[in-house]
Amino acid sequence: MSAASSVPTFSGVIPPVVTPLLADGSIDHASLERLVERLLSEGVSGLFALGSSGETAYFTDDQRVELLRTIVSANAGRVPIIAGAIELTAPRIVATARRLIDVGAQAIVTTAPLYTLNSAVEVADHFRTIAAAIGAPLWAYDVPVRVHSKLGIEMLVQLGTEGVIHGVKDSSGDDVSFRRLIAANAAAGHPLQLLTGHEVVVDAMALAGADGVVPGLANVEAAGYVRLWDAAQKGDWETARTEQERINRLFDIVFQPKGLSGDATGVGAFKAAMQARGIIDHATMARTVQTLDPDAVGRIHGILADLDLLSVAVG
Amino acid sequence: MSAASSVPTFSGVIPPVVTPLLADGSIDHASLERLVERLLSEGVSGLFALGSSGETAYFTDDQRVELLRTIVSANAGRVPIIAGAIELTAPRIVATARRLIDVGAQAIVTTAPLYTLNSAVEVADHFRTIAAAIGAPLWAYDVPVRVHSKLGIEMLVQLGTEGVIHGVKDSSGDDVSFRRLIAANAAAGHPLQLLTGHEVVVDAMALAGADGVVPGLANVEAAGYVRLWDAAQKGDWETARTEQERINRLFDIVFQPKGLSGDATGVGAFKAAMQARGIIDHATMARTVQTLDPDAVGRIHGILADLDLLSVAVG
Amino acid sequence: MSAASSVPTFSGVIPPVVTPLLADGSIDHASLERLVERLLSEGVSGLFALGSSGETAYFTDDQRVELLRTIVSANAGRVPIIAGAIELTAPRIVATARRLIDVGAQAIVTTAPLYTLNSAVEVADHFRTIAAAIGAPLWAYDVPVRVHSKLGIEMLVQLGTEGVIHGVKDSSGDDVSFRRLIAANAAAGHPLQLLTGHEVVVDAMALAGADGVVPGLANVEAAGYVRLWDAAQKGDWETARTEQERINRLFDIVFQPKGLSGDATGVGAFKAAMQARGIIDHATMARTVQTLDPDAVGRIHGILADLDLLSVAVG
Amino acid sequence: MSAASSVPTFSGVIPPVVTPLLADGSIDHASLERLVERLLSEGVSGLFALGSSGETAYFTDDQRVELLRTIVSANAGRVPIIAGAIELTAPRIVATARRLIDVGAQAIVTTAPLYTLNSAVEVADHFRTIAAAIGAPLWAYDVPVRVHSKLGIEMLVQLGTEGVIHGVKDSSGDDVSFRRLIAANAAAGHPLQLLTGHEVVVDAMALAGADGVVPGLANVEAAGYVRLWDAAQKGDWETARTEQERINRLFDIVFQPKGLSGDATGVGAFKAAMQARGIIDHATMARTVQTLDPDAVGRIHGILADLDLLSVAVG
Repeated sequence: MSAASSVPTFSGVIPPVVTPLLADGSIDHASLERLVERLLSEGVSGLFALGSSGETAYFTDDQRVELLRTIVSANAGRVPIIAGAIELTAPRIVATARRLIDVGAQAIVTTAPLYTLNSAVEVADHFRTIAAAIGAPLWAYDVPVRVHSKLGIEMLVQLGTEGVIHGVKDSSGDDVSFRRLIAANAAAGHPLQLLTGHEVVVDAMALAGADGVVPGLANVEAAGYVRLWDAAQKGDWETARTEQERINRLFDIVFQPKGLSGDATGVGAFKAAMQARGIIDHATMARTVQTLDPDAVGRIHGILADLDLLSVAVG
Repeated sequence: MSAASSVPTFSGVIPPVVTPLLADGSIDHASLERLVERLLSEGVSGLFALGSSGETAYFTDDQRVELLRTIVSANAGRVPIIAGAIELTAPRIVATARRLIDVGAQAIVTTAPLYTLNSAVEVADHFRTIAAAIGAPLWAYDVPVRVHSKLGIEMLVQLGTEGVIHGVKDSSGDDVSFRRLIAANAAAGHPLQLLTGHEVVVDAMALAGADGVVPGLANVEAAGYVRLWDAAQKGDWETARTEQERINRLFDIVFQPKGLSGDATGVGAFKAAMQARGIIDHATMARTVQTLDPDAVGRIHGILADLDLLSVAVG
Repeated sequence: MSAASSVPTFSGVIPPVVTPLLADGSIDHASLERLVERLLSEGVSGLFALGSSGETAYFTDDQRVELLRTIVSANAGRVPIIAGAIELTAPRIVATARRLIDVGAQAIVTTAPLYTLNSAVEVADHFRTIAAAIGAPLWAYDVPVRVHSKLGIEMLVQLGTEGVIHGVKDSSGDDVSFRRLIAANAAAGHPLQLLTGHEVVVDAMALAGADGVVPGLANVEAAGYVRLWDAAQKGDWETARTEQERINRLFDIVFQPKGLSGDATGVGAFKAAMQARGIIDHATMARTVQTLDPDAVGRIHGILADLDLLSVAVG
Repeated sequence: MSAASSVPTFSGVIPPVVTPLLADGSIDHASLERLVERLLSEGVSGLFALGSSGETAYFTDDQRVELLRTIVSANAGRVPIIAGAIELTAPRIVATARRLIDVGAQAIVTTAPLYTLNSAVEVADHFRTIAAAIGAPLWAYDVPVRVHSKLGIEMLVQLGTEGVIHGVKDSSGDDVSFRRLIAANAAAGHPLQLLTGHEVVVDAMALAGADGVVPGLANVEAAGYVRLWDAAQKGDWETARTEQERINRLFDIVFQPKGLSGDATGVGAFKAAMQARGIIDHATMARTVQTLDPDAVGRIHGILADLDLLSVAVG
């Protein structure tokens, strides 16, 4: 296999796969297989394993491997898989990444270092160190709400030009910066694939030039995103917007839980809706994350019902 | 004049008018008149006086009145004028706002309180107190980078429904939140006009449903924004995007100054480009803001030249 | 009067005077006079008028002048008075400061610019511009929780050495930085008087070398701070600490209100306790700040009772 | 051994042990043994292994075990050892902690979760989950500059009362909060040992009631901290302060590097000074952290020379 042909493409709709858990907190492999099958049947073009929506930070490396193994197996080579290696620093990320690549990850995505106090020069060297060690395409994940720093546009494009990183998942919430990244990447010959992580502005980001989207909400329903993306690719922006507006009504599920943490709220709402639709068997959260109360779940059911999403045929 | 008919509409392209200064720091009324004339001739649909791009925080109320008087006079009733009343708290804002209304502001825009430590309940009461006292339409200005807090979606729509505020200028850089504000406003019957302050994503925000834009960059060239907005209104999104991408190459002027403050950089770049184009006579900044060095100015000239914007016919 | 003799000294205990209000929100001059008399009778060495504890941001300049006039009159020259000129930028601060100096402020204290986006060079020039214009000693107020930036140690000592500022009120909550400021100031020949604004660590800051304290809590009881400071000056650190620990039990009043803003909570607790002690007639807060609920007031009374502070002889 | 007798005491001076590295980045065990011996000979009362000053985030668990093994061996049971288990979440922390306990850590210290978005309830459960799983005393590490959230006073005292945590290392830089924590802990019967991590305010924190200090600077010279702490224990606050002021002149080494990251600057300065004093053989930093330039190192040597710390007898 040549180097060129070995680089998988991640564009279009690439959902971050949620991690279904049994009531005792162990991994629900049956639900996970069903979820992967469902995502593929709805037309997604790739899978983002072990991301924030997958509660990856709450799992040990053994559990991550176990999760990825099931995703890879269920996917059966149909779409490319990129996996998050979320750890503190380069040597720890490399160790995790190697295990994930061994199990079938075709690309790795990671953030700037966590916990440490680094300069931009050091962050760039962090990505270079990882890329040189793992032997698989590396992606940068820009998520300041979790990492507490933002990846700079010049650094990202420079790393892309060097071949260190192949793309960026942007969950920065800073679309001005994302637009400027798109322009800088285009000016440099498009070394990077640029994915947005923000579910509610995909039409706008597609118009702005994004290469794809990683929508956590697609775990609840992926078909809408696929329709949206297809319309955008055809330049049918009115259809894209109409679909986005319907999706955004669905996204309201994440605002139903009150007084809970960010992790309990977002992934908790996804899991409650997925359970309601029969996609997964339990809405159990990773250990120490709180569970939604029945009122919030009830409101989520109401939103699903309004959108005719409560009954779903699961293969 | 009935109450209904008295409410001016602010939609489309409403530039925040820059404040030209003479070399000694006093107001350059001749350049200001020329700037207003130019903006109107390029087709803007309103004027936003005394905003951040107007360096309003650096001027006394007497100077603000002096500035607004010239803008009103030059405008000669052609488009509606909204003026910023930027001050610490409600009583101080009301005092400033009344003076601006006396001089011809048809609406007032202000932020959450500055310096104080307030709850959301108190911020809402802040806007209610001001609206009740000034006798002109009030707008909320959401600019967390300056105010260090974000205005909540529910509060804004609630204030709109109450008739307390008539619109929002959003410079939050948080387009996910802006999209959700657009949806919530639509669901409430569109009580608010929603303007984005972000120059580089106007096509995307128009697709998302924004009612208009307040682009500081329009002081350098407004015609592009007018073309962009017109195309978007017609659903011609490819043209809108193409125009946006051209504009974004122009916006690069604000990244030419190095090592200066946010205020020196942004407004400084606008003024340098406006001077280069003959729109204003001097690029003098408000007192204590630093001036661009010749290298930065040179790079700005280069960008203007590349875009064929160096020679301009000033009426 | 020579220039040298004209510079007032602000050291020891210098309370920031709370602003008593009548039930209708207008200034309660009678209570204010009583408060000033009480502070002086308890032995304070200066008065800090129009600070954050005085809710100064919520008042117009006319009201500020009115407030200061009463404080100056009640003080009758017994201790020096420094007044806060809290406004956005240099020209606006200068205008406010001049009015306060006219009414009797012997020194002015202000912050870095508000709302604007300035560099360190511009902030230093801001203080230089103000100092050159007001004709009275200028102090710097470092309160990042309100101003959202921190004044740098090198800049402060530099401005002190230049004679631009005469002292610093530090409410940064960053005692590591404050300790380093004390050392740098000592190394430069002590151009600055350095006051801490943190009520609960005065013994520790005195040991560290602070020149004085500006405790909002002294509005409730100043005598304890005077005893603490006197003990510290004599090197009797055990007495200082014992007094501090008693004071800190009193400071618990500010943690009794629940769910309110920072301004409602802190000054609200002071006012509730002052009213309970008969020092002021009403606990009315400045307009749009919320009022404490009866439960919180009840708990505040309980703390006062535990410390034998409920009955007070007011001259 | 009874449960009660098995709980080691961590009070007084407990330095966070720096990690010496060879020029190729591997662990310099000889220097590490020499460092431990030196710290013990200067009178420290415990060792804090694998903390931020030890660059622990940059090492794999295998390296951490290797490091701790050498520290334990060099210590030979003379003082108690607490080790940092810095990882993302409870299950990952538990896995790391168990390996460290196996090698000889007598207590474990960790932070709130990293990367995740948790509520206070979830953070408390995080500590409970870890404590229940590791079978060794757990300490909480409060370092907002790295973790980006602050541990609440009520939660800490509650966890102490429950027996979940035995102490807190406070590197929050918020001494107002630390003072309140000391008071709340005293009121609850002193379930927690409270250590400050701030090198330059130890005298003040001792006066305030801290139980000990974890000074990174003690790697350069521990004897001064031991003298300071002994003086404070005897109530000789003038001696404590004088020693602190001498130490603070030494601490200036961390302000000599310019333009580098927080990790490069602080630990880099310690390592440069340790090398200059002959305590370690190389000043090599953990991989991707930048190295000090010769000018910074020269200035550090100058500070050491001024304080007569350049020549040192190493046993």
